[in-house]
Order: sequence, then structure tokens, then C-alpha cells
Amino acid sequence: MKVIIDLCVVPLGVGVSVSKYVAACHEIINQAGLKSELHAYGTNIEGEWDQVFGVVKTCHERIHEMGAPRITTTIKAGTRIDRDQTMADKVASVREKV
Amino acid sequence: MKVIIDLCVVPLGVGVSVSKYVAACHEIINQAGLKSELHAYGTNIEGEWDQVFGVVKTCHERIHEMGAPRITTTIKAGTRIDRDQTMADKVASVREKV
Amino acid sequence: MKVIIDLCVVPLGVGVSVSKYVAACHEIINQAGLKSELHAYGTNIEGEWDQVFGVVKTCHERIHEMGAPRITTTIKAGTRIDRDQTMADKVASVREKV
Amino acid sequence: MKVIIDLCVVPLGVGVSVSKYVAACHEIINQAGLKSELHAYGTNIEGEWDQVFGVVKTCHERIHEMGAPRITTTIKAGTRIDRDQTMADKVASVREKV
Repeated sequence: MKVIIDLCVVPLGVGVSVSKYVAACHEIINQAGLKSELHAYGTNIEGEWDQVFGVVKTCHERIHEMGAPRITTTIKAGTRIDRDQTMADKVASVREKV
Repeated sequence: MKVIIDLCVVPLGVGVSVSKYVAACHEIINQAGLKSELHAYGTNIEGEWDQVFGVVKTCHERIHEMGAPRITTTIKAGTRIDRDQTMADKVASVREKV
Repeated sequence: MKVIIDLCVVPLGVGVSVSKYVAACHEIINQAGLKSELHAYGTNIEGEWDQVFGVVKTCHERIHEMGAPRITTTIKAGTRIDRDQTMADKVASVREKV
Repeated sequence: MKVIIDLCVVPLGVGVSVSKYVAACHEIINQAGLKSELHAYGTNIEGEWDQVFGVVKTCHERIHEMGAPRITTTIKAGTRIDRDQTMADKVASVREKV
């Protein structure tokens, strides 16, 4: 089952700057070979369900190892069985209608 | 790694009523033996990371089997390594300060 | 336009405990006379759109006044024009199908 | 109070394709003169709180007018009082650390 997610990981107890933790997640996503897009309020990732959610778990583990005692994450996750759709398809579908 | 999540599963392409799909998810959560609380905009679940996210995947698979061609889900997921905290602890912690 | 929201306000830069900020939000919601339900990962609120989102803004202002330099909030917001539905209706609709 | 939001509007009861509704929201955002960025799982918008959330309300009203009986929306909203930060700043801050 393919999934496209939007991932926003927020470490608590480490001050106001969270960019180094987000950067660590990007290395994890890239090392997993998953396609992703960073945006101003999260990161979109596409791939097989188990691999994508495996990466989310690894992000939590890594951020705790980096010293964050608490993490709260928001995820949007989309699956569909009627047809294949990539992240690029979704953006293109809106742009052609604007 | 323990996790508390808030899960809100939204099937698309099946009309406006989504309650039977949410009810199917509740059976999956209960069969997994996980503690959960239904609220008006989702369901809170607590347990070990792999088991909790395994249930989320099973919910997507089941809802597709029930006929929904597309699903969009919103998840909040919290982990902490400084101390144990249950769903009941979180609610109690706010209530004692109100 | 009536709306039901799920509100989860997360102050950053104030350590790991966020319950006193959530409690402050509850006072704001109650003072506004809005119906709400606290759960383990947020608070559900129902009412007229402008009043509900006015409360969300007041929560951000109050939490900043309490000393939080940064806040990240997750909101789910539902509206429907086919029929009236309260928070209690939504929970009941699922429970009768479980 | 400046805010950066991530907006994901999901109409229910209108089939599986939601791109024309998202396109309608983009026209509303542009007509309001707000800076925004479309991504594969939502749209980021930055501006003054009242104007940004006014646009969110207008999106719900327009999508109902277009025939959707029900809408469920997910919003992430960030405010900070320690310093100014744009959407572009947030992305740049992560990129320089990767």
C-alpha cells in the first residue's frame, strides 16, 4: 500500500529552534531512499506504508537521542486504491485548475 | 517506545457519513487490546509504537476493503522519554490546574 | 456557520510541561460560553465559526503573555450544511455502530 | 499577530477528486493578497492572523456554495513573538543544516 504523508515533528524541552531536528529527519528520509519535499510547515514523503512509517519512528528515536525529552508530531496520511498518484501529480492537478 | 496518538480517519468517495468506518476502526483497536478513548473528532490510542501504528495501517486496509477508494487521515503522535505518562495522566494534569 | 474543532495548542521554549497553558485555554473557552470537551490530545469545541476561532486567537495571545515565545497549534475543523450535528451526536453515531 | 499556517481542506460527499476545491481556495488566497505556497498535502499561508483565518472561513463558505455538504479541514498554525520569521526563513533554516 502506497502512502503520501505530511510530517511535522516538534521536539519539546529544547528551546524554540527546531530546525536541527528537522534536518536530522531529512537525513533519515534520504538515507531510506524515499522521495520527499520540504515545505515551511513540514515535509511530504511518499513510498510504501511500512517504509514511510518506519522512517517516522526512526525520526522520533533519533530526536530523543539528540536530547529532546518529549516530541509531538502531526501527520497527514493519504492512501488510495482507485489509481496511482504521486506528490507531483497532486500539485499538478491543482495547478491546472487555478 | 510508548506512544499516545490521536487518530482521525476520513474516507473519501463514500458520501458524507463516516461513522461506520470509524466504528470498524474501533473494533480493530479493541481486538488489538489497545487502550483507547473515542471523542468527537477522533480517537486517542496508547501503547507500544509498533502496535499502535500497526493498528493505523490495518484501519486503512479495512476501510479500503469496505469500499472507500481514498482515505485521508490526521494523526497526532506524542512520545516522551523523561517519564511515563498515560492518556488519563494527561487529562488529569490539565484538570487539576483549571 | 457552525463549526466543531479539535484544538491542540503546543507552546515552545517553556520546557516539557504544557498543562498550565492548556488550562489557561480552558478558562478562555469557558468564559466565552462555548461547549467543549477536554481529551488526552486536545480539546473539542463547538459553536459559531467567528466565536470559536476568536477563542483560538485569544489562546495564542494569552499563552504568549504567559511567557511562551513560540506556539504551534494543530486544529481540525468541521462544518456541514446538510444537517445540524453536535459533538455529542458525532460520538453517539459511532457508538451505536460499534 | 503574524501567523504561518498549513491549510488542508477536505470536502466530503463530492467524490474522490478534491483538486477543484483546492484551486478555488487558491483564488481566494490570491485575491486576499496573501503569500502562499502550494504543496502536495496542503497550502502554506503567511500573514496577519485575522486576515489569514478570514481566508480559511471564506474557503469553507465557497466550498459549501460549490456543493460540498461537509468539509473537514486540518490546520497547523504557528506564531512567535521572539522574532519575525517568514515561510522562506523556515525552509532556509532547515536547508542550511542538512
